[in-house]
Amino acid sequence: MEIQPGPLLKRIDSPTDLKKLSREELHQLADELRQYIIDVVSVHGGHFGASLGVVELTTALHYVYNTPYDQLVWDVGHQAYGHKILTGRRDNFPTNRKYKGLSGFPKRSESEYDTFGVGHSSTSISAALGMSIAAKYKGEKDRKVVAVIGDGSMTAGMAFEAMNHAGVANTDMLIILNDNGIGIDPNVGALKEYLTDITTSPTYNKVKDDVWKLMGKLPVGKNFTRAMGHKLAEGLKGMVNSNANLFEALKIRYFGPIDGHNLAKLVDTLKDLREIPGPKILHIITTKGKGYALAEKDQTKWHAPGLFDKVTGEIFKKKFDTPQPPKYQDVFGHTIIELAEKNEKIFGVTPAMPSGSSLKFMMEKMPDRAIDVGICEQHAATLSAGMATQGLRVYCNIYSSFMQRAYDQVVHDIAIQKLPVILCLDRAGLVGDDGPTHHGCYDIAYFRCIPNMIISSPMNESELRNLMYTAQLESNQLPFVIRYPRGEGMMPEWQTPMEEIQVGTGRKLKEGKDVAILSFGHPGNFAAAAIREVKAAGITPGHYDMRFAKPLDEVLLHEACQQYPKLITVEDGTVEGGFGSAILEFMAKHGYKNDVKILGIPDRLVEHGTPKELHQECGYDAAAIAQAIYGVMQVAAIPSGNNIIATPPVLS
Amino acid sequence: MEIQPGPLLKRIDSPTDLKKLSREELHQLADELRQYIIDVVSVHGGHFGASLGVVELTTALHYVYNTPYDQLVWDVGHQAYGHKILTGRRDNFPTNRKYKGLSGFPKRSESEYDTFGVGHSSTSISAALGMSIAAKYKGEKDRKVVAVIGDGSMTAGMAFEAMNHAGVANTDMLIILNDNGIGIDPNVGALKEYLTDITTSPTYNKVKDDVWKLMGKLPVGKNFTRAMGHKLAEGLKGMVNSNANLFEALKIRYFGPIDGHNLAKLVDTLKDLREIPGPKILHIITTKGKGYALAEKDQTKWHAPGLFDKVTGEIFKKKFDTPQPPKYQDVFGHTIIELAEKNEKIFGVTPAMPSGSSLKFMMEKMPDRAIDVGICEQHAATLSAGMATQGLRVYCNIYSSFMQRAYDQVVHDIAIQKLPVILCLDRAGLVGDDGPTHHGCYDIAYFRCIPNMIISSPMNESELRNLMYTAQLESNQLPFVIRYPRGEGMMPEWQTPMEEIQVGTGRKLKEGKDVAILSFGHPGNFAAAAIREVKAAGITPGHYDMRFAKPLDEVLLHEACQQYPKLITVEDGTVEGGFGSAILEFMAKHGYKNDVKILGIPDRLVEHGTPKELHQECGYDAAAIAQAIYGVMQVAAIPSGNNIIATPPVLS
Repeated sequence: MEIQPGPLLKRIDSPTDLKKLSREELHQLADELRQYIIDVVSVHGGHFGASLGVVELTTALHYVYNTPYDQLVWDVGHQAYGHKILTGRRDNFPTNRKYKGLSGFPKRSESEYDTFGVGHSSTSISAALGMSIAAKYKGEKDRKVVAVIGDGSMTAGMAFEAMNHAGVANTDMLIILNDNGIGIDPNVGALKEYLTDITTSPTYNKVKDDVWKLMGKLPVGKNFTRAMGHKLAEGLKGMVNSNANLFEALKIRYFGPIDGHNLAKLVDTLKDLREIPGPKILHIITTKGKGYALAEKDQTKWHAPGLFDKVTGEIFKKKFDTPQPPKYQDVFGHTIIELAEKNEKIFGVTPAMPSGSSLKFMMEKMPDRAIDVGICEQHAATLSAGMATQGLRVYCNIYSSFMQRAYDQVVHDIAIQKLPVILCLDRAGLVGDDGPTHHGCYDIAYFRCIPNMIISSPMNESELRNLMYTAQLESNQLPFVIRYPRGEGMMPEWQTPMEEIQVGTGRKLKEGKDVAILSFGHPGNFAAAAIREVKAAGITPGHYDMRFAKPLDEVLLHEACQQYPKLITVEDGTVEGGFGSAILEFMAKHGYKNDVKILGIPDRLVEHGTPKELHQECGYDAAAIAQAIYGVMQVAAIPSGNNIIATPPVLS
Repeated sequence: MEIQPGPLLKRIDSPTDLKKLSREELHQLADELRQYIIDVVSVHGGHFGASLGVVELTTALHYVYNTPYDQLVWDVGHQAYGHKILTGRRDNFPTNRKYKGLSGFPKRSESEYDTFGVGHSSTSISAALGMSIAAKYKGEKDRKVVAVIGDGSMTAGMAFEAMNHAGVANTDMLIILNDNGIGIDPNVGALKEYLTDITTSPTYNKVKDDVWKLMGKLPVGKNFTRAMGHKLAEGLKGMVNSNANLFEALKIRYFGPIDGHNLAKLVDTLKDLREIPGPKILHIITTKGKGYALAEKDQTKWHAPGLFDKVTGEIFKKKFDTPQPPKYQDVFGHTIIELAEKNEKIFGVTPAMPSGSSLKFMMEKMPDRAIDVGICEQHAATLSAGMATQGLRVYCNIYSSFMQRAYDQVVHDIAIQKLPVILCLDRAGLVGDDGPTHHGCYDIAYFRCIPNMIISSPMNESELRNLMYTAQLESNQLPFVIRYPRGEGMMPEWQTPMEEIQVGTGRKLKEGKDVAILSFGHPGNFAAAAIREVKAAGITPGHYDMRFAKPLDEVLLHEACQQYPKLITVEDGTVEGGFGSAILEFMAKHGYKNDVKILGIPDRLVEHGTPKELHQECGYDAAAIAQAIYGVMQVAAIPSGNNIIATPPVLS
């Protein structure tokens, strides 16, 4: 059943069509846009609440501004579905986030309306400022640039850095602060409270006008001398001019707050602001999930709910007859509580990912020992380092691709000081639908070059628990990375007793002949399936689950290099500089000359798709590993029969 | 001639001794401390102005607070010389920044008073908050934590992230904002202007008190109704309570500004603040270089002036009879102007390093096309990306170790979008006296894993110019990294005509036999010297200046692998995952089995010292490369005669 857009939306092939609508029709269009998002996302999946919250804003922006000449930058682009639909991608929208389909985020190569790729948060003001500086330099005085940024994204330091520059760069840039109080989880921190203050204060909005009006009327009398009046006036002037507002303190003119769902007001305001030169910020109040009652009510659940019945609101979950393995995330979330109950030094820290990482379990159970710091990866890392100096054992849980934002802090504050912070790198490897901005491809390479780092990865739930247990032992006094993928592991019975794994030791899973597979982390399961597969051809590879990319298990490696002329390495990370490279370095050092084939993420951008599709494309799913074994053994591949086990699931 | 501290300072072996002094003696001690810093730095070198500016603050802090139980975190620790001298390191202070001597920054392993290693800026609030959260959790109610941070460091995003958290974490933490208007170069941005506003406004300081006092006295009369008064009061209340000040907006109580050189006032104020619970900020105004007139006058020059005559103020410069090679920095600074004069699309961007990078030449000559964004590496990278979307060719100049702070922005905003930003990585490799926090060790490894990146390094000035020329050609549409060391190059006659270097091509410097050296960047000169050395032993290595770590010159590599059974790689970067690793990956892919020895920065922290000392220690100076050649050739080393050329200088 094809999903039909509404009658007005059907006619909008570009913002040019939109501009032909009357103000009345605009309201209907916004309604149809919202309905179309609901219709498509309920059937095809994707992010949900964020785009519903900016339907009116999206409509107003494309109505008022001359896009794509005027440039819109959508911070954390998962709010940009409406934008995509209005800019020529209405009919393709059902392919959103599907393999070879539309990206879930704005993407420059997809449309000229997508001025900047935005998957990670808080980049929009910097990018927009760069565009507006270019426009100013080129003398394009009529060209406007708008950054749309959420209040959650505003907490990240780089947004502040950009405002610090914008306030003095004096370009025609508008920042729209889309204040809905929530990212994926509810926003936290002083800025959030500040925004609530200025929004809820009944007097704030008009206070500037009022103060100025009243100042002219201050009477002078017995108890209130002229000098006192002058003093007051001076003080007020100072405050009103430059200090009255966080944004005005940064020399950015502040407007608002206004209702971000009032389309008429938005259109009028944007028309006015379009003509006001210089840097300015418009504060709008919106509701994430607006227009879909359940999504408004439980905004975290409906951030990206998966498929659902749009009428009943039932979110579809796969049903299984047998117990299924849990998500690695939940294993982390439950295990940290188990550990913290026994070791009072344990803390949990996450930058705005309590639900995603499942640290929320601990936040609920031990609220004084689990901290969400907001979208502040840099702070999260150095805060953890500061806590570690006091003997606390901090599990800092950050997605691999967001860890990139605290790279210097890991080098400078954690590794150089040998502080035993435990970095849990969630969503390591190819994450699936979110695509290249979110794949956790690089962490093995970018951490392996840093001294003092321990880099580990579990092949299953039990290993994750054991690594988490090991990391907090007093015997460990070094930074300890545990990387694991998004989604399900392998063990329905995952609550195994925890035991120490000696740092830098792997395990031999299988003795074999001629060729050995050295795997790192979860893809070891793909390797195991491949080994079962190639048995039919008489090939019996050895298999080592190396567990540590640093330090390497040199005992096992000497054995493998001496026993097997051919080696295949398998990892869920870049082949450049990754785990396979570490093996080559070991071999060069010791003069081993084995043939080595490195399987992992190739040196190109991997787009979005299911992890299964992407593992296949990148050549390290079970079938591809089997092919690699045939290849190095120079044996013609035996057509895969029923004995090959599909790549185990890694996506929930 | 040994430098003698003053009579009071001579008695101060720890803050315990300091606390015994009378308030009057304290002033004398501060004077002696300042004099001792001048005496030692003039003779032994080091950072100068920053520590002079906080002599009174340092004295007051250790007088009032119970260090080391109370914890001080000194942002960008080059201001901490006074702290070091007062905490047991007075007599060792002349070894500051010397090989095996004291570190130029606070360092945990050096003293219990050094609570946190601080080489990069803007980490102090996060670290201090971590410590104060730990103290609160442990019930150490009497334990105080103080972060001292400059106004320049305050512009970095992570400081804002930390304040956003501090404002709600409600721990006993004091932030001292040391406002001197300058980092290394004068500070820039809206925050700087804001701080100037609140400092220079004669009424601001006392306005809160005044407003409250006056509010009780507001008269009611004909022109000023009770309702109007109420309205005004409400408005004022809102502003005064939460919006009147940038820091108070973030729920941090603001005090000041006060004169940071008024020791008595500092002691009184700190005593008061020590007893006030919760997060608070004290704004102090200081002069960088205070007490040394020349340093107060030209603060950039006197940031770290080198050796000087403390009486005349003459800064000593080495004198040479023959023309010397220029610093790579100056080659960059002059060449970008040459290029920009011909290509109007060229811009320069630097995060707070105009002097260090020599971008200041362009800022002076083309002020609208060269931008200092302040200590904002993240913003610098994404701003450059935004400008690149508009066709501008941006040279973003960042020190290698600070590039770490914009790693995600390079991945997410530059590389994934294939934007042709030119990243000039200054101070790549071992930087010398600044030590492990500042060594540019990791960039080859951390960039090599990212798709779409071009990674180049010049062996001399001419190559730097050619790479800079190549990067801006329209034929280049990819991110282009040019890494080069701190200090002098090789060519007194450096202004060679510029020509294109085809991306991914190296050059063969020398045909040879048995062993080939593959070098990347400036250390190729060390290799060349080694090759001259080993000639005496009848060894004639080949030598390739590879120029690109990515993409590799596969033609040259096939030649080298086929022609030489033994290879030695040389780089000024980590052996883990770096250039040598790239060669191993190439070999594994193509089945080459040559012996390979990788020379570069080993997998451990390299402390401070001169680059020459460190290259020797790490085993890739000319002598060490010669030894490596003897080693792989299994020839006994011929004792080095006069024919070995010392490692060429790389430090100004």
